Amino acid sequence: MATTMRALVKVRPVPGAELQAVPIPEIGPGDVLVRVQAAAVCGTDLHIYYWDEWASKRMHPPVIFGHEFCGFIEQVGEDVRNLAPGDFVSAEMHIACGHCYQCRTGQAHICRSVKILGVDDHGCFAEFVRIPASNILKLDAAIPPDYAAVLDPLGNAVHTVLAGPIAGCSVGVVGCGPIGLMAIAVARASGAGPIFAVEVNANRRQLAQAMGADVVLDPSTDSIEGIILERTVGGGVDAALEFSGHPNGVHTAFQIVRPGGRVSLLGIPPRPVELDLTRDVIFKGLTVQGINGRRMYETWYQMRSLLSQNRLHLEPLFTDRLPLEEFAVGMERLRAGQASKVLLYPSGRPNA
Amino acid sequence: MATTMRALVKVRPVPGAELQAVPIPEIGPGDVLVRVQAAAVCGTDLHIYYWDEWASKRMHPPVIFGHEFCGFIEQVGEDVRNLAPGDFVSAEMHIACGHCYQCRTGQAHICRSVKILGVDDHGCFAEFVRIPASNILKLDAAIPPDYAAVLDPLGNAVHTVLAGPIAGCSVGVVGCGPIGLMAIAVARASGAGPIFAVEVNANRRQLAQAMGADVVLDPSTDSIEGIILERTVGGGVDAALEFSGHPNGVHTAFQIVRPGGRVSLLGIPPRPVELDLTRDVIFKGLTVQGINGRRMYETWYQMRSLLSQNRLHLEPLFTDRLPLEEFAVGMERLRAGQASKVLLYPSGRPNA
Amino acid sequence: MATTMRALVKVRPVPGAELQAVPIPEIGPGDVLVRVQAAAVCGTDLHIYYWDEWASKRMHPPVIFGHEFCGFIEQVGEDVRNLAPGDFVSAEMHIACGHCYQCRTGQAHICRSVKILGVDDHGCFAEFVRIPASNILKLDAAIPPDYAAVLDPLGNAVHTVLAGPIAGCSVGVVGCGPIGLMAIAVARASGAGPIFAVEVNANRRQLAQAMGADVVLDPSTDSIEGIILERTVGGGVDAALEFSGHPNGVHTAFQIVRPGGRVSLLGIPPRPVELDLTRDVIFKGLTVQGINGRRMYETWYQMRSLLSQNRLHLEPLFTDRLPLEEFAVGMERLRAGQASKVLLYPSGRPNA
Amino acid sequence: MATTMRALVKVRPVPGAELQAVPIPEIGPGDVLVRVQAAAVCGTDLHIYYWDEWASKRMHPPVIFGHEFCGFIEQVGEDVRNLAPGDFVSAEMHIACGHCYQCRTGQAHICRSVKILGVDDHGCFAEFVRIPASNILKLDAAIPPDYAAVLDPLGNAVHTVLAGPIAGCSVGVVGCGPIGLMAIAVARASGAGPIFAVEVNANRRQLAQAMGADVVLDPSTDSIEGIILERTVGGGVDAALEFSGHPNGVHTAFQIVRPGGRVSLLGIPPRPVELDLTRDVIFKGLTVQGINGRRMYETWYQMRSLLSQNRLHLEPLFTDRLPLEEFAVGMERLRAGQASKVLLYPSGRPNA
Repeated sequence: MATTMRALVKVRPVPGAELQAVPIPEIGPGDVLVRVQAAAVCGTDLHIYYWDEWASKRMHPPVIFGHEFCGFIEQVGEDVRNLAPGDFVSAEMHIACGHCYQCRTGQAHICRSVKILGVDDHGCFAEFVRIPASNILKLDAAIPPDYAAVLDPLGNAVHTVLAGPIAGCSVGVVGCGPIGLMAIAVARASGAGPIFAVEVNANRRQLAQAMGADVVLDPSTDSIEGIILERTVGGGVDAALEFSGHPNGVHTAFQIVRPGGRVSLLGIPPRPVELDLTRDVIFKGLTVQGINGRRMYETWYQMRSLLSQNRLHLEPLFTDRLPLEEFAVGMERLRAGQASKVLLYPSGRPNA
Repeated sequence: MATTMRALVKVRPVPGAELQAVPIPEIGPGDVLVRVQAAAVCGTDLHIYYWDEWASKRMHPPVIFGHEFCGFIEQVGEDVRNLAPGDFVSAEMHIACGHCYQCRTGQAHICRSVKILGVDDHGCFAEFVRIPASNILKLDAAIPPDYAAVLDPLGNAVHTVLAGPIAGCSVGVVGCGPIGLMAIAVARASGAGPIFAVEVNANRRQLAQAMGADVVLDPSTDSIEGIILERTVGGGVDAALEFSGHPNGVHTAFQIVRPGGRVSLLGIPPRPVELDLTRDVIFKGLTVQGINGRRMYETWYQMRSLLSQNRLHLEPLFTDRLPLEEFAVGMERLRAGQASKVLLYPSGRPNA
Repeated sequence: MATTMRALVKVRPVPGAELQAVPIPEIGPGDVLVRVQAAAVCGTDLHIYYWDEWASKRMHPPVIFGHEFCGFIEQVGEDVRNLAPGDFVSAEMHIACGHCYQCRTGQAHICRSVKILGVDDHGCFAEFVRIPASNILKLDAAIPPDYAAVLDPLGNAVHTVLAGPIAGCSVGVVGCGPIGLMAIAVARASGAGPIFAVEVNANRRQLAQAMGADVVLDPSTDSIEGIILERTVGGGVDAALEFSGHPNGVHTAFQIVRPGGRVSLLGIPPRPVELDLTRDVIFKGLTVQGINGRRMYETWYQMRSLLSQNRLHLEPLFTDRLPLEEFAVGMERLRAGQASKVLLYPSGRPNA
Repeated sequence: MATTMRALVKVRPVPGAELQAVPIPEIGPGDVLVRVQAAAVCGTDLHIYYWDEWASKRMHPPVIFGHEFCGFIEQVGEDVRNLAPGDFVSAEMHIACGHCYQCRTGQAHICRSVKILGVDDHGCFAEFVRIPASNILKLDAAIPPDYAAVLDPLGNAVHTVLAGPIAGCSVGVVGCGPIGLMAIAVARASGAGPIFAVEVNANRRQLAQAMGADVVLDPSTDSIEGIILERTVGGGVDAALEFSGHPNGVHTAFQIVRPGGRVSLLGIPPRPVELDLTRDVIFKGLTVQGINGRRMYETWYQMRSLLSQNRLHLEPLFTDRLPLEEFAVGMERLRAGQASKVLLYPSGRPNA
């Protein structure tokens, strides 16, 4: 085995990144080394690549970034059981501390001392990545690698959609970036209906349709609230799922939900938002949920079940498939709003 | 309007029933009169028709039986609001008392003084049926009448399937009579998988496949527990749903469920069943649910959503479609295990 | 029986109210007439009495106001079962429509067409009050009348406290008006601990102590967040219950709750509030609940159980006990913040 | 520090046990060594001591038994963080595998490969015990050592009582051994009422009264079902908690619970039990829960909260306090039904 590998490194605290030859990570007794088959670019990676305020506060280059991927186990540490070289896997890249109240009570997804691989330590935009064995999820070989590469954001979507009753429920998906689009597919596969998608961008509205939304609405021209009120029985949707992070999106979510329904917030507003709590939350008897990450590891098992049984159809998401070295193309297309989900292949595209 | 109608009457406390001309029911201020478009035969109707021990204890003929149907409102009582002649409807035939603790706390489906139309008072095997307005459910015209006619048993299936987490969960359906078959479709539409169907009867196994089961098993030849253990990740299915009412079925349900899973019991065992509570319930940390009727009216709204959005495919269920006067043929085919769901049309089959 | 009664009437759309002789209400077939033994003054009654903007928009005088009370049934309508003259009762004064989705699915407390007795129609500041039988709650004679008179606000407190896990949980009660104070007693009786009370008013802080708070904090001098963080294990309280309706109170609730905890909002902010959803809700993985009214009728049964078994100690709440004709004194003391809960006795104070 | 310690060892696969001098355990990098301050005898220890069929199948002597205790950390392994010598602690003695589906989804209490210290490996009837750091719970010094010594069975009680709604609920406790008695105290502290205790043994009925039961019933003379039906509003108790493991106790639990209530089973029936599922579970719409162990670690945090705030009064439980060397006396008194909870002090009784 070689001792170096190709990796996309955030080298310095300025915009950009470099493809470098770096040492293959050495693993500890509780770690595994995974050969990355496919990786995907997250919005977070854009923040890192273009080096915005958040990135400059949080990251300490040099770091190999990237945290969405799948691959095959190359090597396991001496204490690792239940995993072996050759296993097809993905991983939860939030490394929870294991000691805090949240970790000890089944809420590790909101661990108070979490560390994220690909942000706080080396990630997966490389030929190999080192992961603690406890964070590895074995996958069924029946799951296509491109699907397996996006389990991290798909997990956000599944966590959001399944955070409350969904079968036989009406749903509003506000914001149709990749996670919102995945949420449409998950809601559809989970028996929700009607599913309303709300999105300002025309390309994304087309994708929303392709993912299975029943009604696709444009807030710049449609009377969202009126249409939804008319087509639901409870005075709004049972579940309003917010993925945009935009104040308008947040307000829309609270307007379209029925009294007694739920609003699940995953999109990250960059600034505080003014809410009419009296009208929109208290008198409506709402439940509002903040959704962060993926439940460890319920969400992963739910995804594995949905994917192994071929219940999700994610194909329209994958707008770009590139070898790792063409990363800059993918970053640009994402920034320009031309791409939805960009896949990178550290060893070149399979079957290409 | 005529003053008499055709009705299938349980005339005397002996096997059989008669098609008679009887007065059209008069409605009170809170009632509606519904013209029956399609009705369906339940196992309970077989008990009544062939007059078994349960029927002889419970019923007091003469009674028009039948409790699964849909139709159009013909007339509404003077106090009735929100309903009007011409509305396409079905109805919950369990008439809850409204006064008991259960009724006052959202558990009317287990009302301690329930009365069932079609058993304790006149039902729907007739041209017209009288129903309290509070028990009526308005339906979308997009729902096919044959589907609308089986909302009562479909509600049993939905109540059972959705009594716990289901999307991304593995499920075992034990017993594939009509309600078990419907449960397969509901589980499938709700994102469950893999769905294992367990059934001794070969016809029903074929239907189970057609309804969407991923794996269909025959307890007389297959090693049920071994197969399910191998194909699930948690040491069994997340949810075992029992529809057979047979002691073997009950035991199977407890064997195939994973530690921490749920067993939902809808099938009615005719006699007490011996359970190894220590091994099968306590050490496994199980949740066991007794399921009765349909939740009023959550289950009905869930069904309406699933059907309005065309999420359920029930077609294989409908093995027999008969005009009301051929009721005896349907009863016989059901008793012989040749039919699954028999539809009766009091005004002749539509479009026939 | 006399034909007129004394009643406190909001006569005209200006501040004030008059004690008048008015006809005793006639009841319909589904109503009961209750002789009021004790009534209590709510903050809403102050709005009505002093005629603020909300009142002027909502009410249409003349109306007998008041909605917190207990009494004995004097007369029952011809259709009323399960109730009889002489029964000791209180009542839910929110009259739900019974037809909307919320009413039909066990969420009548957020009925979309609710009518409130004492606001939209005649209430209980009178010798007699007419109530639909379905809204009556029979009480155990062991419950003291003064306690029975405040079941409406106690129900707000119980609804809020029991809207999530509570036994063995740390709790923050923000705002110690009457409902906040009751919430302390309910939380204490339900196994919560430690219970932190946050209140700016010194009198109310004393009452909070008397009601059973473990730690009483003054936001004007104490470092609330630091103290609570130090004395809890999860990085804040498991449940933050907001009763003040003040923006500062709302912000405090979000600051003191642990990641993964719940914020339950009952206090009514008069204006929109700015929230840092990203930091305070999403990354924290919070559940935020809007709490309105009382669950019909789970909350009432919970209260009956707590009171019949003598689990709640509410005595410190009752700062003022007055005959009905001294209403103006009570209103003034409430407005001045000198009173907590004011009881009015339409027939003079019992045993006085 | 000495190199040997006194320990109560199950030496051979025959009845009895021996107090021996054995080496103080050596700890691994992830372990801690705890100096035992107080230990308590469980029914399981009686099975081991008197060597019944279960013990002979499960245990492989020589083993130091005992699994209920508290103490002070003496030494920590090199990888241990968040714990230090001198910490006052107890421990969960079920060592979960960490790898199975249950462990990875917050259900470690039903881990499929659990190992129990004091049964499968050395336990706490000794001066020192070795425990994996992950299983240690730090305690507040305000918790009395005798209380801290029984957190294991108290956790069973808390797990059972808090497995569903409890505040404002009526509860039946069937079987008043130590865990049933603790459950009474927990239910009382959690706002339950009325609390009915059902127990055949007169001593235990007295203890049930002392622990806070509202109504204590003797199944050999009282008409249990009639009394409970009369004193509850829903047609039985909201929650029936079974601690006896006796078939009669199990049947009682199912008889006294109201339709829609829950039956939580913790007592271990030695043989299968015949249940009328149709009448007692399905038509009643019950939820039946198998309860095993304690939730890791929610239950522990709940206990810590209840005890730190002094909400539980367990004093009547402690019928016997003995130095370790008098273990045989305690075992005999337990076998004879003369003792409820026996405490053993490996270093002699504190303050004695």
